[in-house]
Amino acid sequence: MRALTACLTLSILISCINTAQATATKKVIEDEHLPRNIIYLIGDGMGPAYTSAYRYYSDKPDTKAVERTIFDELLVGMASTYPDDDTYVTDSAAAATALATSTKSYNGAIAVDHQHHALPTLLEIAKQKGKTTAVVVTSQINHATPASFLAHNESRGNYDAIADSYLTNLIKGKPVADLMLGGGTKYFIREQRNLTSEFEALGYHYIDRLVQLDDVETLPALGLFSPSGLPAALGSDDPLRLTTMTDSALRLLSSQSDPFVIMIEGSQIDWCGHSNDIVCAMTEMHDFANTLERVKRYIDNHPDTLLIATADHSTGGLTLGKKGVYQWKGKQLQLITMLPEEIADKLIATPKILDKPNSFNRFWTDHIGITQPVEAQDELRQQLLANLQQEKAKDKVETLIKSAIDTLTHTGWTTSGHDGIDVQIFAYGRGSHYFAGHMDNTEIAANLIEMINRKKSSHSALLLEPRI
Amino acid sequence: MRALTACLTLSILISCINTAQATATKKVIEDEHLPRNIIYLIGDGMGPAYTSAYRYYSDKPDTKAVERTIFDELLVGMASTYPDDDTYVTDSAAAATALATSTKSYNGAIAVDHQHHALPTLLEIAKQKGKTTAVVVTSQINHATPASFLAHNESRGNYDAIADSYLTNLIKGKPVADLMLGGGTKYFIREQRNLTSEFEALGYHYIDRLVQLDDVETLPALGLFSPSGLPAALGSDDPLRLTTMTDSALRLLSSQSDPFVIMIEGSQIDWCGHSNDIVCAMTEMHDFANTLERVKRYIDNHPDTLLIATADHSTGGLTLGKKGVYQWKGKQLQLITMLPEEIADKLIATPKILDKPNSFNRFWTDHIGITQPVEAQDELRQQLLANLQQEKAKDKVETLIKSAIDTLTHTGWTTSGHDGIDVQIFAYGRGSHYFAGHMDNTEIAANLIEMINRKKSSHSALLLEPRI
Repeated sequence: MRALTACLTLSILISCINTAQATATKKVIEDEHLPRNIIYLIGDGMGPAYTSAYRYYSDKPDTKAVERTIFDELLVGMASTYPDDDTYVTDSAAAATALATSTKSYNGAIAVDHQHHALPTLLEIAKQKGKTTAVVVTSQINHATPASFLAHNESRGNYDAIADSYLTNLIKGKPVADLMLGGGTKYFIREQRNLTSEFEALGYHYIDRLVQLDDVETLPALGLFSPSGLPAALGSDDPLRLTTMTDSALRLLSSQSDPFVIMIEGSQIDWCGHSNDIVCAMTEMHDFANTLERVKRYIDNHPDTLLIATADHSTGGLTLGKKGVYQWKGKQLQLITMLPEEIADKLIATPKILDKPNSFNRFWTDHIGITQPVEAQDELRQQLLANLQQEKAKDKVETLIKSAIDTLTHTGWTTSGHDGIDVQIFAYGRGSHYFAGHMDNTEIAANLIEMINRKKSSHSALLLEPRI
Repeated sequence: MRALTACLTLSILISCINTAQATATKKVIEDEHLPRNIIYLIGDGMGPAYTSAYRYYSDKPDTKAVERTIFDELLVGMASTYPDDDTYVTDSAAAATALATSTKSYNGAIAVDHQHHALPTLLEIAKQKGKTTAVVVTSQINHATPASFLAHNESRGNYDAIADSYLTNLIKGKPVADLMLGGGTKYFIREQRNLTSEFEALGYHYIDRLVQLDDVETLPALGLFSPSGLPAALGSDDPLRLTTMTDSALRLLSSQSDPFVIMIEGSQIDWCGHSNDIVCAMTEMHDFANTLERVKRYIDNHPDTLLIATADHSTGGLTLGKKGVYQWKGKQLQLITMLPEEIADKLIATPKILDKPNSFNRFWTDHIGITQPVEAQDELRQQLLANLQQEKAKDKVETLIKSAIDTLTHTGWTTSGHDGIDVQIFAYGRGSHYFAGHMDNTEIAANLIEMINRKKSSHSALLLEPRI
């Protein structure tokens, strides 16, 4: 880690850039297509099945037409996501490293190469170029994706060290991001050390409730709204909390004079995928889709800005078809009012719901709502009942509920991990046409870094030189 | 079916166009972007997981880089495939009807609407416009996809009637296609009727072996190379038989003076998907990829031609990840020399292979080649042995082999049917930019029909009027 530490100050950042083994081809961006601001959105885990599913989930029941989604409006291409080993299936850290630095690395890497040398991130480069920088996520802000834009670490699991480095990884004497919104108080307010106070000492406005966002009038600012990740969208006080944070971020970024670069992540789409929970996935997608809508509207009013959106990888092996049935009934997921995990909590806390068919039917109607045959429903009730007293009851009950929903909607999953399928690229606004067609994930970052580098000078010393 | 029959002659084709409920938006194609020839390729069942998988399957083992595929080179967008009902998951007939006529219909429909009225197909319109027309497929030529370009029927299952209608569905007094290559002798040479002789009486050169393709010097021509679908790619005398047929088709089409429109289908990718057979899928993809390479090369020499390629839907719920492992080992599929179905035949015919570990290991090394732990291999041998004498032994043995390959490569499937995931659009050559971004499958056809209609006159009576 010595080389990494050596890279953590601006004075030697430039020398470290030579260690960045950029594998991407670099496009020449025409001056008139250089965006002033870049809004970079990442749907963590959002493979192509998720956007197809979201179209049918949100299809209006009272119209014959299937409505186009914001994803349909913005689609321009697809990206490969494989990491720098022989697995072809990336984790979020290697993928975020590729998307933040234009260099592939190993699974687990936070903006470092195989030798643990720091790879300059596009937010570091933007900050160096005098731009205002921000990250807005629904995970803890020191989770793999935001961390790969703000820090360098040999392992994504070093949460405390990553949080600490947000105060020591300085560009022009300041932290990399002028604005950070997300979760993570348990990492930032520890027994031994309160990083939020240290950020306040550096002039950051610190808030810990979403409703305080309106109180923030200037940058820098830090908002941590939960111990770890934010509450899931479904059942949350603000089911569109990514949209809410994005609105505030764009207000703050627009109110200052410098150009800005912001990374916005719909972090929990991936978590729903790991859990093979389609209700969770669609409600997180809804927040991410709304966020994209807001950003698109922002660009309609600020055409000098680029929207670029992609996923780091696909999660769960989601598909819209199961066991030979030619149907996907995802629209019915709109009826569900509570996540399977919460349903499991409720059934464990109140087992008498399962005692009789009538009480379970009432519970089912209130919280799931999808009609199923009486026999299947009673069989499920008995299975749930049988699992209530077993070891790991919550996991088993939750799995039974998710499995019933998958059966009723014909939703398929193949893994609790990631899969290797290409993801989509969405773009809008100035320079968006440079992202059309098929790219590797490193090429997305290479284009963005080129845009950031080129903004003020076409011969920047920070220009990444590709090695191929 | 009365209305359908009434549509089957040219004289009233135009009046029937009013029944075509085109749902697609229509783009205005600039004159300079109108292609002279259109080469329309369909990878049946080829969802996005198939092209990602093909990249990693064909990744060269002796280079560090992951090589881009022809699919990567040609990707321009994605398409939704839902049929005209509330299932969101299409079958091949409804999808082919959408891709051939620009109108969504019900699952099972062959270029007819819900009332069984004929919907004009782009090959009919092309023929009417004086263009030379062709279909080249690896299925029987009266299978759902080619049928939806050449005939009209209320049900894809009416194979004999569809074959018959290739002789009665006339444009300017002639069959719709000037060239048809694929399989299907059992439908075309029946006890009561020999349609190949009837085609010969109309001047068609009829051949029934691939090696005779070089003997065909003029159109019209008909080649039927197998009773039903062509032999699978792996183990076939010509594993690149779609490529071979395409080469001959392009030679014949280029040698005549009229512009041409050809539909080329990699039909059996879908069949492999239904069978959840990744070896089969990758070897069919290899033939389709080679075909795309040839067509791209053709366009490099004939830049007035458009290549447009897509899939009708995705099959099998294929994903590149299984049971939490972050790896896809598809490259190892290159070691397999025989399809699981044939392996099952072989084991049933020669059960002594399974008697001892040594003989089974030799067989495994010769035909599967992927290393697996000794215990797992012997457990598989015993399972295979136990299933040999059971009912449906072949299905069970084949399933065990496929399942072992899936486990070793971490390949996931969720259904024996289709899934509802969007498919990709690939384009190259003149007019290719009209297919960029997200489209509905009907819009692909609408653009092509507009191109065909506009070629000789911008005010064609055959222009489809969209209804939205």
